[in-house]
Amino acid sequence: MALTIRTHITNTTHLIVNFHTSTKKTKPNPFTIPTHSLHTQCNLLLISHLLLFTIKSSLIDPDGGPLVDLIVPENERGLKKVEAESLPKVKLSKIDIEWVHVISEGWANPLKGFMREDEYLQSLHFNFLGLKDGSIVNMSLPIVLAIDDKDKEIIGSSPDVGLIGPNGDLVAILRSVQIYKHNKEERIARTWGTTAPGLPYVEEVITPAGNWLIGGDLEVLEPIKYNDGLDHYRLSPRELRKEFDKRQADAVFAFQLRNPVHNGHALLMNDTRKRLLKMGYKNPILLLHPLGGFVKADDVPLDVRMEQHSKVLEDGVLDHETTIVAIFPSPMHYAGPTEVQWHAKARINAGANFYIVGRDPAGMSHPTEKRDLYDPDHGKKVLSMAPGLERLNILPFRVAAYDTLAKKMAFFEPSRAQDFLFISGTKMRTFARNGENPPDGFMCPGGWKVLVEYYKSLQAEEAGQQSAILSA
Amino acid sequence: MALTIRTHITNTTHLIVNFHTSTKKTKPNPFTIPTHSLHTQCNLLLISHLLLFTIKSSLIDPDGGPLVDLIVPENERGLKKVEAESLPKVKLSKIDIEWVHVISEGWANPLKGFMREDEYLQSLHFNFLGLKDGSIVNMSLPIVLAIDDKDKEIIGSSPDVGLIGPNGDLVAILRSVQIYKHNKEERIARTWGTTAPGLPYVEEVITPAGNWLIGGDLEVLEPIKYNDGLDHYRLSPRELRKEFDKRQADAVFAFQLRNPVHNGHALLMNDTRKRLLKMGYKNPILLLHPLGGFVKADDVPLDVRMEQHSKVLEDGVLDHETTIVAIFPSPMHYAGPTEVQWHAKARINAGANFYIVGRDPAGMSHPTEKRDLYDPDHGKKVLSMAPGLERLNILPFRVAAYDTLAKKMAFFEPSRAQDFLFISGTKMRTFARNGENPPDGFMCPGGWKVLVEYYKSLQAEEAGQQSAILSA
Repeated sequence: MALTIRTHITNTTHLIVNFHTSTKKTKPNPFTIPTHSLHTQCNLLLISHLLLFTIKSSLIDPDGGPLVDLIVPENERGLKKVEAESLPKVKLSKIDIEWVHVISEGWANPLKGFMREDEYLQSLHFNFLGLKDGSIVNMSLPIVLAIDDKDKEIIGSSPDVGLIGPNGDLVAILRSVQIYKHNKEERIARTWGTTAPGLPYVEEVITPAGNWLIGGDLEVLEPIKYNDGLDHYRLSPRELRKEFDKRQADAVFAFQLRNPVHNGHALLMNDTRKRLLKMGYKNPILLLHPLGGFVKADDVPLDVRMEQHSKVLEDGVLDHETTIVAIFPSPMHYAGPTEVQWHAKARINAGANFYIVGRDPAGMSHPTEKRDLYDPDHGKKVLSMAPGLERLNILPFRVAAYDTLAKKMAFFEPSRAQDFLFISGTKMRTFARNGENPPDGFMCPGGWKVLVEYYKSLQAEEAGQQSAILSA
Repeated sequence: MALTIRTHITNTTHLIVNFHTSTKKTKPNPFTIPTHSLHTQCNLLLISHLLLFTIKSSLIDPDGGPLVDLIVPENERGLKKVEAESLPKVKLSKIDIEWVHVISEGWANPLKGFMREDEYLQSLHFNFLGLKDGSIVNMSLPIVLAIDDKDKEIIGSSPDVGLIGPNGDLVAILRSVQIYKHNKEERIARTWGTTAPGLPYVEEVITPAGNWLIGGDLEVLEPIKYNDGLDHYRLSPRELRKEFDKRQADAVFAFQLRNPVHNGHALLMNDTRKRLLKMGYKNPILLLHPLGGFVKADDVPLDVRMEQHSKVLEDGVLDHETTIVAIFPSPMHYAGPTEVQWHAKARINAGANFYIVGRDPAGMSHPTEKRDLYDPDHGKKVLSMAPGLERLNILPFRVAAYDTLAKKMAFFEPSRAQDFLFISGTKMRTFARNGENPPDGFMCPGGWKVLVEYYKSLQAEEAGQQSAILSA
C-alpha cells in the first residue's frame, strides 16, 4: 500500500515524504484515517492531510480549498437585487437553475461559477481543472451556461449579467463574464463518446441551447429552493459536513443512486459498514444520496424515490443512526465513465472519503444500437485512474442477486450460480407496473408498496390521457 | 513567472521548493535552462531537473525515464525469429508498421508496446498515462493495434503473438498480450470530438479495423526501414539527441510540419533562434521535423516535401549549421487539439525543449460542414494546459503574411493590414498546380520549382489515367 503524508509547513515550502508500508491495518487516531484492502480489486490510496494547527474535523478536505459559498449574505441582498435589475439579463432553464444550485453550495468546489473557456477546455479534454498552485481537481463534466445570438447581442460588452429564473425572478449575478463558442458536436462527442441521437441530457439541454457559452463568477441572490416538500432533504455540502461531525463520523461512505433501493443495495451498504468497522473505524456513516436533478422520463421521479427510501429506513433495512439520506441536486447526464467521476468528486466536497461504484455507473443503453453505451467495467476502471480522485477510496460494487435457497438478496456465489436470480431494474419496474410481487425478500414491503402505487397512478394517468385523446 | 526546482535527493525523499521570481532573464549554466517571456500570450513554466551526479547532456530528459529501445539485439535475432515463427500471427498494415516504428524508438516513451486497456482508457479519457511512481506523461492519442474475430480466435490464450508485415515478413513479437473490445464509435468521438464521416485516419484505419484491440510489449526483430531513399532522414530520438549533443545545443526548438516550407515559416524559425540567443542561449538548434507517416491524399507526399525542404536549406533560407532536418515517423490523425499534444510530446523525447505551435495545428475542415473542425485557437490553448507537458516551452506561432510593400514575408502588423497578403496552403497549391508564380519572396525559387514539378507530374499522371479510362 502506498502511503503519502504531506505536511504543509509554510506556504512556500513543502516537504513530501513517500514511503511504502506493508501494514494492512492501522489504529485510527485524530490525525489519520485507517485504510485496508477492502477488496482484491480495490486499489486503495490514502493521503492523510495533516493540518497540524487547524484541525476541526476528521473529514476529508474539500477539493481545492475551503468550500465556496456563493449565496449573497442577507444584508446585501437588497442592493444586489437593485444592481441585478439594471444589468443585461439571461433567462435560465430549470436545469440551469439546478447547476446554479450545485455551484453555489460547493459541490463543484472550487468552481465559483459557470466555466470560462479555459476551464471548459480542461474539463472537456482532460477531466480536470488546474489550480493556481499547480495542483488539480477532478472535473469531468463541463458545467456551462449556453446563450443564443440575441442574448449575446443584449449583453454586448457588459462585464456582469443578471440571471433570471423560468418565472422571471432574479436568481443571480454572473460577474466578469466571458462569452465563447458552444461547439455542441465536440462537447457531446467528448463527453458521451458518441453523437448518436437520443441521449437524454443532449436532447433536453444541449440540442435546443444557443451557440455561445457564457462563463463567469456567480453571486446567487438567495439559496435555491424548489418548494416541492423535499427541500429539507437538500442538504448542502456544508450542512452534511456539520451533520457528519455532529455524529462524530470517522468515515463517510457515499452511495449515489437514481433508482429505488432494493435489499441487494441494502446488503451492500450494510456490508460496507461492517467492513469499515473491522478496519478500525469507530463510526462509519452512510450517505444515501439520491440524485435530485434532471433524470430521463422513464426513471422513477424524485418524490416517489424519496418516499421509497424513507420506507427502507422505517422498515429497518438501513439503520437510522448511521445513515443520512439527502438529495444530490445535480442533473443527470447518463455519460457513464465520464459522469461517474463527477458523482464521486462532488461527494468528496460533501465529506465522503469512501465511494461505492456499481457496474455500468451512470450508464444506459446505446440510444440507437442494441448494446450498452459503455462497457460495464469502464466506469469502475476510469474512476480508479481519474485525475484528482486519488484521495477517494473507491469501493467496487459486489454483485448481489436473489438467493432462491435462502430467499433473500445475497452476494452472488459463482460456485452455485443456479441458485441465484438476477432481477434487473427493468424487470423490477415490470413487476411493479403489472402489480405483481417480486420474490420475498427482494425489497422491504413498505418500499415496494410505494413503487406499486406510483406505477398504478401512472397507469391511471396514462389511461386518462388516452381516453381524453380518444374522446377529443 | 512560476519557477519550480525539484531536487531528487534519494529515491524515497523529495524536497520541493516553490518560489516566485520576477527575474526575467537568467544566465545559462550547466545545470539550468534559461527562460524568458517570449511572447505575451506565452505561459512559460520551466522545471529544471537537476540530476546532480549523472549529467551527460544538457537536453531535456525523455518522458518517464530513459528512452526505450525495443529493437532485438543482433545476436538474439536468429532465436527470436524462430520463436516468432512458432507463435500465432497477426498481420500488420502499413500504418501499423509506422506505429511499431514510433514505439520501438521511444517517440512515445515510456510506452513499451501497443496499449493495454488501462493505458488506452487513460489516453482516451485523460490524455495521459500514469506511471508507477505516481507521475504522469502526456499521451493524447491511443496507440493501439486492432484485430478481428478470426485473429482473436487464432491467438486463443497464447501470451505472445508474432506480428508480420504486409509482405508476410516477421516484424515483431508482442508479449503478454491483452485483448479487449475496440469500441470504434467511442474511440473516434473522444479522439476527434466528432463522428462525422470523412475523417482521413478514421476512414483509412479505424472503420475497416477489427472489433478487438490487442495490447502488449513489443520486441521488434529489426529496425524498421522503408527503403524509399529517405531512411537516412529517419533519425531516432536517440540519434537526434546524439546529434544535438555533438553540436553542443543548449536549446532545441522543434517545428512540426506536413506542408512545404515557405518564407513565412522560415522567418518564424529564424526569428525564434534570434530570440533564444537574446535570452542567453549560446547555441539553439532547430529541429525541422516533417511528419513522415500516413497523410491524407491531397497533402504533398513526403518525398516531394523532403526535396523541397532540402532546397530551402540549399538556397540558404535556413542555416545548415543550426538546423537538423529529420523525419518524424508518426502517421497523421488530423485530430487538432488532441493530436498537437502528441506532436509536442514526441519531440520532448527527441530532446526538444521548445515547441512552435501554429494556428489550428493538426486541424482540417469539418468533413461534412462548412467550417473548421476545431476552433483555430484551441490547439494552442489545449497544448498550454495539457497534463505532462509542463516541462515544454510552448512558442505560439506569430502570424506571417506577404508584405506587399517590402515584397517579402513579414510578421503581420494589424496597423497596416491593407499592405499584407495572406496566402493560404490552398492558394499556394493552386498557384503551383496552375504553373503560376506566387509573389516574389513568398518561397525560395528552388523550393517553389520542386512544387511546380510535382503538380505538373500529378497532372500528367491524372491525364494519363483519364485517357486510359476513356480508351478502355
